[in-house]
Amino acid sequence: MRIVSAQDYDLRREVEYGSPEQNAAVKRIVADVRSEGDRALLRYTAQFDSTTLESDELRVTEEELQAAYSQVEPSFVKAIAAAAANIRAFHQKEKRNSWMDLQPDGTLLGQIIRPLKRVGVYVPGGKAAYPSSVLMNVIPAQVAGVPEIVMVTPPATGGKAGIDPYILVAAAEAGVREIYRVGGAQAIAALAYGTESIVPVDKICGPGNIYVALAKREVFGAVDIDSIAGPSEIAVLADDSADAAFVAADLLSQAEHDEMASAILVTDSAAFAQACQKEVQRQLAELPRRAIAAASIERYGVILLVDSLLEGIQVINRLAPEHLELMVHEPMSYLSLIENAGAIFLGPYSSEPVGDYFAGPNHIIPTNGTARFSSPVDVDDFIKKSSMIYYSKQALLDNGETIMELARREGLEGHARAIEIRLQREGKAGNAHDN
Amino acid sequence: MRIVSAQDYDLRREVEYGSPEQNAAVKRIVADVRSEGDRALLRYTAQFDSTTLESDELRVTEEELQAAYSQVEPSFVKAIAAAAANIRAFHQKEKRNSWMDLQPDGTLLGQIIRPLKRVGVYVPGGKAAYPSSVLMNVIPAQVAGVPEIVMVTPPATGGKAGIDPYILVAAAEAGVREIYRVGGAQAIAALAYGTESIVPVDKICGPGNIYVALAKREVFGAVDIDSIAGPSEIAVLADDSADAAFVAADLLSQAEHDEMASAILVTDSAAFAQACQKEVQRQLAELPRRAIAAASIERYGVILLVDSLLEGIQVINRLAPEHLELMVHEPMSYLSLIENAGAIFLGPYSSEPVGDYFAGPNHIIPTNGTARFSSPVDVDDFIKKSSMIYYSKQALLDNGETIMELARREGLEGHARAIEIRLQREGKAGNAHDN
Repeated sequence: MRIVSAQDYDLRREVEYGSPEQNAAVKRIVADVRSEGDRALLRYTAQFDSTTLESDELRVTEEELQAAYSQVEPSFVKAIAAAAANIRAFHQKEKRNSWMDLQPDGTLLGQIIRPLKRVGVYVPGGKAAYPSSVLMNVIPAQVAGVPEIVMVTPPATGGKAGIDPYILVAAAEAGVREIYRVGGAQAIAALAYGTESIVPVDKICGPGNIYVALAKREVFGAVDIDSIAGPSEIAVLADDSADAAFVAADLLSQAEHDEMASAILVTDSAAFAQACQKEVQRQLAELPRRAIAAASIERYGVILLVDSLLEGIQVINRLAPEHLELMVHEPMSYLSLIENAGAIFLGPYSSEPVGDYFAGPNHIIPTNGTARFSSPVDVDDFIKKSSMIYYSKQALLDNGETIMELARREGLEGHARAIEIRLQREGKAGNAHDN
Repeated sequence: MRIVSAQDYDLRREVEYGSPEQNAAVKRIVADVRSEGDRALLRYTAQFDSTTLESDELRVTEEELQAAYSQVEPSFVKAIAAAAANIRAFHQKEKRNSWMDLQPDGTLLGQIIRPLKRVGVYVPGGKAAYPSSVLMNVIPAQVAGVPEIVMVTPPATGGKAGIDPYILVAAAEAGVREIYRVGGAQAIAALAYGTESIVPVDKICGPGNIYVALAKREVFGAVDIDSIAGPSEIAVLADDSADAAFVAADLLSQAEHDEMASAILVTDSAAFAQACQKEVQRQLAELPRRAIAAASIERYGVILLVDSLLEGIQVINRLAPEHLELMVHEPMSYLSLIENAGAIFLGPYSSEPVGDYFAGPNHIIPTNGTARFSSPVDVDDFIKKSSMIYYSKQALLDNGETIMELARREGLEGHARAIEIRLQREGKAGNAHDN
């Protein structure tokens, strides 16, 4: 892991969004599923997942869900239930009520908060199928009050149509009962436009490969989508009070995700930088996923030396990392200075995996610098608001002329007349308008 | 205005998103401004706005802002200030605090709410320059606490570099002091990537023509953008207690916006349908913008007859209109049944222009059925959240094994070890891991 001065390091990272060929393929798949429904859905499932299904085999049965429980360790069921309880408790605190402002003239103004009606959660197949991600996508929707939550996930390839039992148990523990064994761009199209077997949704969320990401972009507008996640990132701000072995372990836990993942240490202590560098080397050698972690560390891992922790915080704010650990003396004293970070972990025991799996806050967090303007997934992602205006006769009499002046200034005489006709009815604004 | 049975009417409406040529032009403009900065910005301003400027002439001066006040009627300044005060008061009530959950084992979990740092507001030129839209975009950002709000608007064409004084006064009343005379895709690119004269922003909002809309889509990811508004819509649900002249005036106030605007009446009364049809005809003939309104009514205006108000509400929920008026007896009794509508106006005096200009809720509202999953602009559009996790030693000792089990189940041994190394340090989890 290189040690460089923060001033010499280019913080930007470009991310690409699929080749023209991939884009064209996705457009075709989406159009076909939209026009042909189940027929195209089953055809693409046979083609891409080597699994031949009939329409009535798409949905995972209640028996399969129950059978999954006997295929996993009881300790796993207990662990996932405990994590689900924590995640549910945290997201409960995010909930908001509709509200009303009652004005003295009889006017009522307000904001009505409602859950979305139907949400689709994509769960990738194979090694990228993470039970924890099922919880993190489903539970906020459920807490928001979404009455219909549906999951799609590709069938195991090679003619077997089964779904990973750990995924099924996580879904059941989160409360999902409507699950379809379809994946890829064809699953996204089915969720967006509906087929004979799948009722369309209002929003699609969940991670996926490049085809899934492109399909989500393609259907956006017909339905809402979540943001498209980039490779995972961690930044650790540490001083010499930090434990180098802890910090190294946390950096590697991020690096093992993906060769594109990035792990950055920012420190004001050259001695700590060297100690951490050594610890990363030592722990890396023993890691099962050392090939991936080593590639990530080689390409995107760096130790940035700064003159002071305050300079370090400026670097952090420019990075706007997905995950930030404050491994410094009195970490709370720096909290108000952190402008841009998706999730902030404070102190020696707040190792990032605590948040990935268990503490309660969501682990779906903005990547690639977008923490500057976006937020971890939460209950707000599954609600919609309506404004409410109950204007009283008195309020219209008092303010009608002002509203008409503003409308006429914008050249919208029809707007002014909608007010005027009411004032005239009440015997105010007696003069007929010019034409 | 046709009267048809609701059952025979296709509620869907497709919206297009620019030709390939327009897309290509926008991509080129954005790339040029990104690589050349001011040079490209000024070149495109000369080309598209026929206005030759130097870099140091881009920013509107404090003198121009002051001069604008002498070019508008004092009554306009008073009206816009009153509207701004109402909009500010309403949006203040949307504000939320950061919060913390304090757990018995010493753990602190929370959500930190912060304003975005810098926001750019696009204001179209010419006849589409609406002072009310300036307020509706700027004030929520300001209430959210955004410290830097910058406005861009194209110069008057034909060699004059002036900006509409009504727009300048609205900006000043809303509190904006940093204004640049640039427009089109080149202005969006400048806001997203910055130039020598314009510091880049975190989010771009505000309406614009197709080039502006495409440019916003092009830069999304580098910065946040607001949603791209479609043509305006109103649906009125009325029974025979409603005033046909009021309803007709409100339908026309929407129709006059744009030939693409849509005005739909849903009613259970054939007599009211006919009365309203007649009133629309009568009022339309006297409207200054009758050509536009007539085209809108001809193409998208319709009166839908339903058997009952409850059926009417089902139609409304499928339409998911931008604006909904409930012109029925006891409108409040229907409020909880409305699932999808951007803004809901209740009762005879809540004419839609009341909300467009004055009452307080935002007039930027989801169109084209997207009220199913999105919301009017509000303070939440200008904040970002960070999760906070301060995990205690006790919590890690209590839950570490569970977290490790979940991590190992996902094949992420590095995650498990980040926990394990801490447990070992505390004398727990004594056994070394297998490799």
